Amino acid sequence: MAALFIKTPNPSHSLPEFHKHRFITRLKLSISLHSKKKTHKKSRISCGLIDPDGGKLVELFVEESKKDEKKRQALSMPRIKLSRIDLQWVHVLSEGWASPLNGFMRESEFLQTLHFNSLRLDHGSVVNMSVPIVLAIDDLQKNRIGESKTVALVDSGDKTVAILSNIEIYKHNKEERIARTWGTTAPGLPYVEEAISSAGNWLIGGDLEVIEPIKYHDGLDRFRLSPAELREEFTKRNADAVFAFQLRNPVHNGHALLMTDTRRRLLEMGYKNPVLLLHPLGGYTKADDVPLSWRMKQHEKVLEDGVLDPETTCGFYISISHALCWPN
Amino acid sequence: MAALFIKTPNPSHSLPEFHKHRFITRLKLSISLHSKKKTHKKSRISCGLIDPDGGKLVELFVEESKKDEKKRQALSMPRIKLSRIDLQWVHVLSEGWASPLNGFMRESEFLQTLHFNSLRLDHGSVVNMSVPIVLAIDDLQKNRIGESKTVALVDSGDKTVAILSNIEIYKHNKEERIARTWGTTAPGLPYVEEAISSAGNWLIGGDLEVIEPIKYHDGLDRFRLSPAELREEFTKRNADAVFAFQLRNPVHNGHALLMTDTRRRLLEMGYKNPVLLLHPLGGYTKADDVPLSWRMKQHEKVLEDGVLDPETTCGFYISISHALCWPN
Repeated sequence: MAALFIKTPNPSHSLPEFHKHRFITRLKLSISLHSKKKTHKKSRISCGLIDPDGGKLVELFVEESKKDEKKRQALSMPRIKLSRIDLQWVHVLSEGWASPLNGFMRESEFLQTLHFNSLRLDHGSVVNMSVPIVLAIDDLQKNRIGESKTVALVDSGDKTVAILSNIEIYKHNKEERIARTWGTTAPGLPYVEEAISSAGNWLIGGDLEVIEPIKYHDGLDRFRLSPAELREEFTKRNADAVFAFQLRNPVHNGHALLMTDTRRRLLEMGYKNPVLLLHPLGGYTKADDVPLSWRMKQHEKVLEDGVLDPETTCGFYISISHALCWPN
Repeated sequence: MAALFIKTPNPSHSLPEFHKHRFITRLKLSISLHSKKKTHKKSRISCGLIDPDGGKLVELFVEESKKDEKKRQALSMPRIKLSRIDLQWVHVLSEGWASPLNGFMRESEFLQTLHFNSLRLDHGSVVNMSVPIVLAIDDLQKNRIGESKTVALVDSGDKTVAILSNIEIYKHNKEERIARTWGTTAPGLPYVEEAISSAGNWLIGGDLEVIEPIKYHDGLDRFRLSPAELREEFTKRNADAVFAFQLRNPVHNGHALLMTDTRRRLLEMGYKNPVLLLHPLGGYTKADDVPLSWRMKQHEKVLEDGVLDPETTCGFYISISHALCWPN
């Protein structure tokens, strides 16, 4: 799956898609990439990283000085044990991948996501948000929370990962969630089977405060750059355009050609330093895919051998891509 | 089902719902109806009918002087026979109930409706559109249309009703349409069973030109006012607020109280002439509902007897409400 992130003035290109509007250099072009005419000299190009959705990158980490206090407070709160996938969503939220969300969705956000694939912000603007980022709990957990306005989120080893406050508990209408998210209720969707069908009948939303950055200790954490780190990297490299290539396979020659050719075309269009963001999908991929750890080794080798230019290819990043195998 | 159409400055009230934003007097209030404080004197009230979605009421009737020519042209076009429900949608489109649509949806509009419950217009603004307004054809009809860019739409008696031009034929993904529209694929949804499951595997969109206003000759046509006629009626009555009450039952005393009390409260808020739009649901209602013709008689009687004030209640109107029995 390849994607070149160019924003043209054509409004039909601005319809929301979840992954498409992050970390994209804002290119204002008077021509499209597919234009046959040689109008390169007429291009008006202005550069700069676009703002995160909502205008501000929302990082949800607890300040260093307050960590001990927060951990102490968490001990007296009702606890929710996070599943593997819940923890990945805490990761997504904590680093601002889902800006402007500042925690698991409350009902209003959940319903907007299901019905409009977007969120309306307080000042009236609308941002893309097509995937519900929600935390399910069961009846027992709901009862245990009772009237508490705050809960502690703990990992499989019972370590406090985060605090969720000003909570709202609402019905987890699974069938509707599945139908509206995937456009089908047919069995066999991996994410549905792992994370929805067997999940609790309630969702809990609230403001998230994460104690420590989420790490997986699988030898791959060094590849997991946060949005802030990626932005820093782009700036450090003086990128005046960023083009991304997302894949869940080893890089093959066709991929490499697409990527180097895109860079060539961007240079032709007047950009001085287009940088490639190579974006292997982590998290949820297909059962028979090459395992991530091997793919990462292959990607490193491809750079080492110069199939892709390490000077203009940005450090790997593993997305937490939960929702693969969508029907469209 | 009752609805009071007041627009408050609260942005959360402006989320799209299909039926809610038509023919509403624009009220700019600094207080809400539920406010306990007596701040009536502080209300800032500005009145006027709001614009139709997209800024302009889109009527799709052929000019009188061109009717004969259009009918003649239609004779040489491929023909599509309209079902009962198709014809009702032609009615909806022709009078501008679905402004800014100017015909059955093309694929881009259909997908926006399914995914965003709204349409993005050329100038970038977004209007509510949560119900696909589409025309299904089967393989045979698609083959018969071939390369033609124009088709004639005919009624059950083969009379030309309308012309659809600049057509686009695309896949009718029924399961996705049902899942995204209703949030379920469970059997038993009446509209699904009558109009989708057995419909063709293709959809045809295009620009609609309607030869004659759609009439049903069931004794109720005089109640079927068009948006333009309703607007004229509101203006004639010098309405400075319009509040609507939509129901699929005979008016009972509880309804009547709600309606008269709403008028009282609007008068208290400073409006001089609030007009009630009584809005019985026609078209698709539940199998065991009181039949429309009897309900209309009852509504007339209620006005005659003064349970509702005929001076401040607007002429009945029957909506073409296809999609009843939604899960939410």
